[in-house]
Amino acid sequence: MNPKLLPPQATVKRLSIYLRFLNSLNKDIKMVSSQELAKRLALNPAQVRKDLAYFGDFGKRGVGYSVKKLRDQINKILGLHKTRNIGIVGIGRLGMALACYQGFEKKNFKICALFDKVPKLLSHKIGEATEITDVNLLPKVVKDREIDILILTVPVEAIKEIYDMVLTSGVKAVLNFAPFKLISTENVHVHNVDLSTELEFLSYSLNLNDDPKDNSSEVILGVPSQLL
Amino acid sequence: MNPKLLPPQATVKRLSIYLRFLNSLNKDIKMVSSQELAKRLALNPAQVRKDLAYFGDFGKRGVGYSVKKLRDQINKILGLHKTRNIGIVGIGRLGMALACYQGFEKKNFKICALFDKVPKLLSHKIGEATEITDVNLLPKVVKDREIDILILTVPVEAIKEIYDMVLTSGVKAVLNFAPFKLISTENVHVHNVDLSTELEFLSYSLNLNDDPKDNSSEVILGVPSQLL
Repeated sequence: MNPKLLPPQATVKRLSIYLRFLNSLNKDIKMVSSQELAKRLALNPAQVRKDLAYFGDFGKRGVGYSVKKLRDQINKILGLHKTRNIGIVGIGRLGMALACYQGFEKKNFKICALFDKVPKLLSHKIGEATEITDVNLLPKVVKDREIDILILTVPVEAIKEIYDMVLTSGVKAVLNFAPFKLISTENVHVHNVDLSTELEFLSYSLNLNDDPKDNSSEVILGVPSQLL
Repeated sequence: MNPKLLPPQATVKRLSIYLRFLNSLNKDIKMVSSQELAKRLALNPAQVRKDLAYFGDFGKRGVGYSVKKLRDQINKILGLHKTRNIGIVGIGRLGMALACYQGFEKKNFKICALFDKVPKLLSHKIGEATEITDVNLLPKVVKDREIDILILTVPVEAIKEIYDMVLTSGVKAVLNFAPFKLISTENVHVHNVDLSTELEFLSYSLNLNDDPKDNSSEVILGVPSQLL
């Protein structure tokens, strides 16, 4: 990959989707074309080729990709050949759900620390014997257990205070579920997931169906043309 | 909006982010520039202008957008001026977490049906008096309660069977959390959320830091140049 040309976020996310598809293929299948990838994943073949071209130098059309090599390379690009140690901060319903989420199991994502501040939760064990630790010990535990990624599932009122603590902990990556956008720093890469946004995206699609007139050229943002 | 030029998914998702920022502004602030939006949201100003241009016809640079009009239009584009009735299928830990997720409260997303098949869960009430209904009644309840969006949080083994039932129910939109990609049909728009993908995206970022050599032009996908 040309380091000057990092792929957009959407491309990196599609690599996960390609990988999932490649892993689901029968072992007898050795080659796969961009047309097949596109068809099975409801994507555009040109988009598939463009995505994969970020990571390599491809030539003639029409034959396909080696399933094994493509899978190995995507695993390597995504860093999935290494185990990532995960900590979850805030063991409410969502934190608990993530602590037990089956999807992480086979992906080299290992939940190895859970944090909360509610006294009655502390020392409780969840899933595979990971006990809930006092959140004030977060910086120490991150270092001791070599946590790579912290998942934040704390209430929005607590997110600023927790993020300040996270920034001092030395962790490199944060997945934030609180409905408040955290900004990445030079040392900490944050990815914000807002579950309302996912619903808003569907609401947009419903709106296209509800009232086609709403989506015609009649709808403009209502901003005078002299402004920007 | 030009109906021939639908915005990409990433643009629609950023509209939610713009809206959240606009809603957080002090009421005295009447105008906002693309530079401000970009700075506060860690985006590129050109990207902000491009996103908003999908929905309108903008002219000269340098003044800004009317906060009120921009907010009203984004609400309208996303269809957030209407209440959306939501049903959740599969009341395990994640389904329960979503049924109680605070973030949906103020967004016109109303949880009005919960489904499961486990006998001991049926008739239990969660949150604001929504009781868990037998999933076999899903098509009837979707019609009776005018459900707009179904959120699927069932185990991966059950997803195909549930999706077949969903397709017959008349619902228009589905948010799927099972780690299996469902394909939209002509009548049902599906948005798949895979929580592992979010972690994989962070793993990719960590990988860039771990081993810069891994991301140099030495890494290619390993596919012979004559293949595509």
